[in-house]
Amino acid sequence: MQEPPPSSRNSDKLLFTPGPLTTSLGVKQAMLHDAGSWHYEFNELVRDLRSKLLALAGLTPADGYEVVLMQGSGTFGVESVIGSVIPPQGRLLVISNGAYGERIAAMAACLKIQHHVLRFAEDTPADPAEIDRALADDAGLSHVALVHCETTTGLLNPVEAIGRDVQQRQRVFIVDAMSSFGALPLAFKSAGVRYLISSPNKCLEGVPGFSFVFAQKTNLLATAGWARSLSLDLLAQWQGFEKNGQFRYTPPTHSILAFAEALRELEQEGGVPARRRRYEANHHRLLEGMKAMGFRPFLSPSALSCIITAFHCPQDARFDFPKFYRGLSDRGFIIYPGKLTQAETFRIATIGRIFESDIARLLDAVKESLQEMGVKVPVA
Amino acid sequence: MQEPPPSSRNSDKLLFTPGPLTTSLGVKQAMLHDAGSWHYEFNELVRDLRSKLLALAGLTPADGYEVVLMQGSGTFGVESVIGSVIPPQGRLLVISNGAYGERIAAMAACLKIQHHVLRFAEDTPADPAEIDRALADDAGLSHVALVHCETTTGLLNPVEAIGRDVQQRQRVFIVDAMSSFGALPLAFKSAGVRYLISSPNKCLEGVPGFSFVFAQKTNLLATAGWARSLSLDLLAQWQGFEKNGQFRYTPPTHSILAFAEALRELEQEGGVPARRRRYEANHHRLLEGMKAMGFRPFLSPSALSCIITAFHCPQDARFDFPKFYRGLSDRGFIIYPGKLTQAETFRIATIGRIFESDIARLLDAVKESLQEMGVKVPVA
Repeated sequence: MQEPPPSSRNSDKLLFTPGPLTTSLGVKQAMLHDAGSWHYEFNELVRDLRSKLLALAGLTPADGYEVVLMQGSGTFGVESVIGSVIPPQGRLLVISNGAYGERIAAMAACLKIQHHVLRFAEDTPADPAEIDRALADDAGLSHVALVHCETTTGLLNPVEAIGRDVQQRQRVFIVDAMSSFGALPLAFKSAGVRYLISSPNKCLEGVPGFSFVFAQKTNLLATAGWARSLSLDLLAQWQGFEKNGQFRYTPPTHSILAFAEALRELEQEGGVPARRRRYEANHHRLLEGMKAMGFRPFLSPSALSCIITAFHCPQDARFDFPKFYRGLSDRGFIIYPGKLTQAETFRIATIGRIFESDIARLLDAVKESLQEMGVKVPVA
Repeated sequence: MQEPPPSSRNSDKLLFTPGPLTTSLGVKQAMLHDAGSWHYEFNELVRDLRSKLLALAGLTPADGYEVVLMQGSGTFGVESVIGSVIPPQGRLLVISNGAYGERIAAMAACLKIQHHVLRFAEDTPADPAEIDRALADDAGLSHVALVHCETTTGLLNPVEAIGRDVQQRQRVFIVDAMSSFGALPLAFKSAGVRYLISSPNKCLEGVPGFSFVFAQKTNLLATAGWARSLSLDLLAQWQGFEKNGQFRYTPPTHSILAFAEALRELEQEGGVPARRRRYEANHHRLLEGMKAMGFRPFLSPSALSCIITAFHCPQDARFDFPKFYRGLSDRGFIIYPGKLTQAETFRIATIGRIFESDIARLLDAVKESLQEMGVKVPVA
């Protein structure tokens, strides 16, 4: 996809953050309308979006998956699954190598769901063999939750290998694919995915306001009475859509309209493969440019994804992250702080309506901001 | 406020529904920007909105109330209060005379919070004396929840009289002011309100995507450890804002930008008194016009509010609500179905960016739609 003409952009700073992110003007303009949430036209749009998401996941209705939209941020969607599909006597294995795995563990603790957290280092993909041992050792572990792409670092977990094992051991596999869905494909069925949560506001380039959940229908139907929240009741939300096409409670109508346009634009771009190519081009340009300035990525090359990249802060005592952040912001670029427990890092996302030419301009701004602080380039 | 020039309106159907509702073009245009949720400019905007809400409620920082924004629909905001501020051994008195009171009861049941529901008929304002007796009889009732304006019917509950009693009996008073805040004032302090929930997408004329909660600070601070949800943890959400100005999880940034514009436009209109006058003018015009066509409002005049009005469906066998709805929709007007258990009704809201001239055109469309169905006007 070519860079859009300048006329299609406003003067907003570009977001190199993993959601909210920079969206197209068309996506934003789709919000210049007020839709009635009870109205049949809106209900048809919602039905159509749910079908399109199924197709985007490579699924047909015959595959037995349902799509449920849930108000709130992605975390609300994850909690709607964790809080709704685990029975009172169930036990959850949380696999964690970052802040989003820890968040699922915090959810389970808050919801008083029995759970065990299997932790890997923040720079280390989860090890399927170790997960297999954990499941073999504890027959009570009924559900397994894994984050596909840990936005903490950009790390990719081997979701399909883990999923095949979870499936073989007949446990229910829950995948948080918040920042990967729409760019990094995942074979739902062979990976034995029962529930997968993602956001309109990551690789699909919509705006925030809701999340969506893929649920295997037979599993979902067996969860009646287990929901630990009225608002976040996944089964009831699905039943609402099936009954009359509506959200049970007021949906973020404008975000939904924007999402419909975002899916049209994804198709125009050439679908998931084309989007992935653009993100990979962005990521490679960023990585090369940052390395040329002496920055070191936090992850080893094999664990890196094209979604977001964590870089070590330079050792130079004159480097000051708040100043660096503001230097970039003054030049029109917003990056993301680090979220690691073990190292000083910052993060740059390469998703959203951004292009290689934007990365090139960002790299110039990085160099200028470093020089402004008196940091020697290349950094060490 | 004068009707806006036609150029400031798009061709969307007008929403006579109690949220989503018709918003101004300016409010929608405020969403043509992508904001970074971690960025200091956005954090300052959120801080400013929280202060402005406090002022709108007639409160100063010295009054000891805090404002918490919560992602999701209004129901999510209500659940964030019900699920966060009642201790494990607490007991909630739910006062109900409509679907929204019942929803709070359903929340308490789902969250396994001990509760008692005191029901009044759907056309009858809650009786303070009966509530007083309930509190006198059961010292274990620690919290009382009341819906200010029941959107089911438009009924107004005597919130201040009830609140004074609840306060005198030293119980915690929770008010769902979803559809009243911003048009129907409420004396927070004399009514002893400890928590009040409302929506940007009712009388404040923003777009959906989040709700806001007023919380008495000393009460809120005492709720640590009680939250029954991670996403909907009211205290943690407030602490997040206080710590770094941020939402804990991704906010609906575009809805927030729209809300900032909506509050500017409220001020331009002349604040809450002016908005109330416009809504009352809309309501009176609607009521007179509908009565002239023979329609009967469900509520007696003393219980009616200017927010939304439920009308009995005509007796005429040729009247068919789905046809009526579609007739109005074809003419550019969206109304709301009934939500009553005891009578066949439909509802027309008079809030949002609509004016008396819009009501006049709606009334013409009502007449035409009735005649199209062969229903005799005036109806009986």
